[in-house]
Amino acid sequence: MIVVMEKDADRQELDEVLANIRKQNIEPVAIEEEGKTIIAINGKMEIEKTKGIEKILDISKPFKLVSRERKPEGTSIKIRNLEIGNGTFLLIAGPCSLETRDQAMESAKILKSLGVKVMRASVFKPRSSPYSFQGMGIEGLRILKNIREMTGLLVETEVMDVRDVKIASEHVDILRVGARNMQNYDLLKELGKVKTPVILKRGISATIEELLLAAEYILSSGNPNVILCERGIRTFETKSYRNTLDIGAIPVLKRLTHLPVIVDPSHAAGNRELVIPLSKAAVAAGADGLLVEMHPDPDKAWSDGEQSLFPRQLSQLIDEIKPLMQHG
Amino acid sequence: MIVVMEKDADRQELDEVLANIRKQNIEPVAIEEEGKTIIAINGKMEIEKTKGIEKILDISKPFKLVSRERKPEGTSIKIRNLEIGNGTFLLIAGPCSLETRDQAMESAKILKSLGVKVMRASVFKPRSSPYSFQGMGIEGLRILKNIREMTGLLVETEVMDVRDVKIASEHVDILRVGARNMQNYDLLKELGKVKTPVILKRGISATIEELLLAAEYILSSGNPNVILCERGIRTFETKSYRNTLDIGAIPVLKRLTHLPVIVDPSHAAGNRELVIPLSKAAVAAGADGLLVEMHPDPDKAWSDGEQSLFPRQLSQLIDEIKPLMQHG
Amino acid sequence: MIVVMEKDADRQELDEVLANIRKQNIEPVAIEEEGKTIIAINGKMEIEKTKGIEKILDISKPFKLVSRERKPEGTSIKIRNLEIGNGTFLLIAGPCSLETRDQAMESAKILKSLGVKVMRASVFKPRSSPYSFQGMGIEGLRILKNIREMTGLLVETEVMDVRDVKIASEHVDILRVGARNMQNYDLLKELGKVKTPVILKRGISATIEELLLAAEYILSSGNPNVILCERGIRTFETKSYRNTLDIGAIPVLKRLTHLPVIVDPSHAAGNRELVIPLSKAAVAAGADGLLVEMHPDPDKAWSDGEQSLFPRQLSQLIDEIKPLMQHG
Amino acid sequence: MIVVMEKDADRQELDEVLANIRKQNIEPVAIEEEGKTIIAINGKMEIEKTKGIEKILDISKPFKLVSRERKPEGTSIKIRNLEIGNGTFLLIAGPCSLETRDQAMESAKILKSLGVKVMRASVFKPRSSPYSFQGMGIEGLRILKNIREMTGLLVETEVMDVRDVKIASEHVDILRVGARNMQNYDLLKELGKVKTPVILKRGISATIEELLLAAEYILSSGNPNVILCERGIRTFETKSYRNTLDIGAIPVLKRLTHLPVIVDPSHAAGNRELVIPLSKAAVAAGADGLLVEMHPDPDKAWSDGEQSLFPRQLSQLIDEIKPLMQHG
Repeated sequence: MIVVMEKDADRQELDEVLANIRKQNIEPVAIEEEGKTIIAINGKMEIEKTKGIEKILDISKPFKLVSRERKPEGTSIKIRNLEIGNGTFLLIAGPCSLETRDQAMESAKILKSLGVKVMRASVFKPRSSPYSFQGMGIEGLRILKNIREMTGLLVETEVMDVRDVKIASEHVDILRVGARNMQNYDLLKELGKVKTPVILKRGISATIEELLLAAEYILSSGNPNVILCERGIRTFETKSYRNTLDIGAIPVLKRLTHLPVIVDPSHAAGNRELVIPLSKAAVAAGADGLLVEMHPDPDKAWSDGEQSLFPRQLSQLIDEIKPLMQHG
Repeated sequence: MIVVMEKDADRQELDEVLANIRKQNIEPVAIEEEGKTIIAINGKMEIEKTKGIEKILDISKPFKLVSRERKPEGTSIKIRNLEIGNGTFLLIAGPCSLETRDQAMESAKILKSLGVKVMRASVFKPRSSPYSFQGMGIEGLRILKNIREMTGLLVETEVMDVRDVKIASEHVDILRVGARNMQNYDLLKELGKVKTPVILKRGISATIEELLLAAEYILSSGNPNVILCERGIRTFETKSYRNTLDIGAIPVLKRLTHLPVIVDPSHAAGNRELVIPLSKAAVAAGADGLLVEMHPDPDKAWSDGEQSLFPRQLSQLIDEIKPLMQHG
Repeated sequence: MIVVMEKDADRQELDEVLANIRKQNIEPVAIEEEGKTIIAINGKMEIEKTKGIEKILDISKPFKLVSRERKPEGTSIKIRNLEIGNGTFLLIAGPCSLETRDQAMESAKILKSLGVKVMRASVFKPRSSPYSFQGMGIEGLRILKNIREMTGLLVETEVMDVRDVKIASEHVDILRVGARNMQNYDLLKELGKVKTPVILKRGISATIEELLLAAEYILSSGNPNVILCERGIRTFETKSYRNTLDIGAIPVLKRLTHLPVIVDPSHAAGNRELVIPLSKAAVAAGADGLLVEMHPDPDKAWSDGEQSLFPRQLSQLIDEIKPLMQHG
Repeated sequence: MIVVMEKDADRQELDEVLANIRKQNIEPVAIEEEGKTIIAINGKMEIEKTKGIEKILDISKPFKLVSRERKPEGTSIKIRNLEIGNGTFLLIAGPCSLETRDQAMESAKILKSLGVKVMRASVFKPRSSPYSFQGMGIEGLRILKNIREMTGLLVETEVMDVRDVKIASEHVDILRVGARNMQNYDLLKELGKVKTPVILKRGISATIEELLLAAEYILSSGNPNVILCERGIRTFETKSYRNTLDIGAIPVLKRLTHLPVIVDPSHAAGNRELVIPLSKAAVAAGADGLLVEMHPDPDKAWSDGEQSLFPRQLSQLIDEIKPLMQHG
């Protein structure tokens, strides 16, 4: 269940509600959102409509705060001067990894010239092998901050270690949770302690419900700014592409949650030839944004080169999705 | 490898080519297509360019006749007065099962009024349980033929038993191979003996290569009129929809084969709410057509009612995919 | 529901029961088994316990005749002089394909010398590619019959085409339905018309319930002699073996059905190194038999050579599973 | 590649080898194991056999230190007074979660009475929902240590957060990485810094190669004491059990790596009825141990009650696997 307090409810009124819930041996979770206190309760109970309560919602799904029932009107998330969700589409693009200051700056310039407003670039790299390039680390965070200051582009990067959340949130505008860490609950809780928007990628074999519950971890820890990202699931088809883009997840998610839903066609594809058709499908199916890999010189990329678009291909992608946007 | 004979090559020239191949202990497969003889050879060999040979193609893939390399320009398949493929989009819609003459006629009228040109309706039903409705059988074929005569709609139905191929091909305009029978090779060979266009649905756990090899069975048995159909694959996600629509299969197939590729969003979805967004995604990703379930009264359908569109929803679907078509 | 008639129930008593069921607009399915008539009814209804009825079972599962509830004591199937199920273990081995009369006879001699009592060998081959060896066909059936006459070995082969069921049942002792045809319902119904025991292999992406419903097709068409076969399912793990042997399917099936359950470790493995450990696991998990590929000279096999055991490995397999049998 | 230094190689000899490698622009990884220095090199290079080098192994697989080629004789891991691997079987059992001091002590007594030597019990719980019981945390670690002191049982628990690795390693004898964290690389690196044996569970959709690379992270960070654990993978079969136990992974892993391989039948099963047959299959397939959930009163368990064995069932399991052990 969800209890939404009135905007001008005072501390005492809130405490009374919490006490009433605790009396029934259930521990409520209270978060702040748009000036209101929202209380999530796992389970079904009787709640008296005491003073200060705006409304009580009976949400039977295991996910509460992220559920569409809680916020039928949908959520648009603010990222500094930008927005995503509820009709506002956002394209995020950039190299898989931040490799050097020069590569980052060159990427940023290309993105600017194409009208892209947010640059992605990983500085902490989750690699299957311990012998692969593990990313630039903290130094990379500084470069990203510097890119924003110099170009005005917002910057986005992945965070993997709970100990990096705070510093990363001070350097970039969007934090990303990779597919491998979707159920790294300590990381999710730590991300709940900052207010930086978080892109939460679906695990390669996570069900849609598990994705929503992972998002619920972040919200119930205090950060309402979560963007969900479908990036392909693992199936028996391992030859034609890296993962199977679950296009049906977009309309399913849009019905179940009020959070924005974006698509990463690059990791699903695993090769750049599929990125444009997958992007078009995602837009037509109603995605609120795309997260696309582009590299100034893909053949020399330190990671994921085969799936990174050439700059001219990103330009083509932008041209091709534009007419679809109003129909998605 | 593929040997394409010239249009005016005579019997003797053909026999010489075949004899040369057999000398190397490989059995060639010869089919007729657009007035030419096409010879498929499994394996690599030296072929002398004797008289009557137009060209020799070195196709290393296990599928030969269906490969895009064999026919880079793509194929458009004629279905009586209609066409599909190579830029021509075709919408096929109708009830899951043909239930009664009245239900069929009512469906046909709705389709006509919406501008749909081909009606689907199964008369042989592959049902998981032997106790479920197994279809109207031969009587249903007669009704379908009658529908065409009375309305001008072309008609499409599934065939499951080798013994029904001939009679079915005499009654309907398109034969369908269901997902469960994609690797029923005797059925595929029998379908190679007629010229009726065949929609070949991908098995729920068939790889893309297996689908193409199944199509190769039909072509190498003599019928070049094959339309491939993606209809969702079986994955771990079993709660949100019936099968996972493999949207990436569309661009992958379009690159590998010259055959038209359509999508059945209804069976992938398993519920009607997802049919429109999946259809839009399919069109945007480049599908040549859709195969959609619509029932005059879905709540009373004898099979697959939950995934059948209401007539007004089919109308909405048509409206929503129209602006996407030129951009797919 | 299931109605079991008494052994000495007469025609009139049976007709009364059937009429009573039909009055409620449900079509009953009646089969003969061990001298009794068994009536399967899909759905729940009131049945009056008229004369001639031994018992009425309320089986809510979608599969009725195959359900363990219908026959808690389990079924042992007679195959000429042999038996399988209910504590009697049966090893079936032999080459993937019957290639020549000599290869078949050599295989048979090896099997005899190792104490194996049933030889497998496919004469109709379901191959992914139309250009691969398709089997010896009818001529192969004659060779198999001849093998039995000369060696006393029982013989087993796959049948794919409804038109081959009758002749195949006249030549061999066990018919096999391959994984690709598990849901080829016309084939299943045709197999219900003979009494030859049938090994029904699970489709590579069939659920356990779908396997049981496929078996229900055969039983409800009149043939109670069905042996289920787990042979690996298709998963994301495509590098280490061909299919993932679903070892858990054995205890699950044993609880749900009274039919014998065997395992084909060869097709699951796809390489011979795994066949022995998988066989041991199957026996320990309670399998009633094994279906194993052995070839006199695997490196020269026309199909599936890599997964065929060398004769000495089959001998080792037999030695290694023996001590496990009493503990399975 | 792998360079094994001699036991009495001195610092200067080691430095020369490392310098020679670095000259070729590759960063070597050096770890200590059984008194020797082992150097792992990713990639292929020329290495001069300078003084102090015992042997140079050309290992082409992406995993080096964990590969069977590196240590064909296999590894037996010491856990205080116990051992696992290389013929020594170890049974670990206990409740899913540590709930209270009393529940832990009661579990320990039951285990002692059954001859079990290691108790499992999670104090940090990775739960899909943020509203589920998250474990006792640090207080639970103290209880576990206390249990060991009072009963002599060794104790095992899961660790999820990098910040808990050190303290957990001071309190328990074996640390466990859960399936959700198999690719939480920062956690794996942190576990490389302690010497406590680590059970690394396979992710529900991790390939066997990915599991080995995850283990390589721990070894290459300095901890050679890794035990691999197969616990079921996610497939389309979601009704009959929780996950599909990949029994074939056992022989595949035994061939690819020298590390011990155990099986968790409880999480694969998801219900206690399957735990015994899966355990028997695992032993027969060659597993080096089992990790089984048992609860003094499963119906009252705070997590995973349905899959926890009753004490009498654990006793039965022990009886039933005993005769299989010598044949596994």
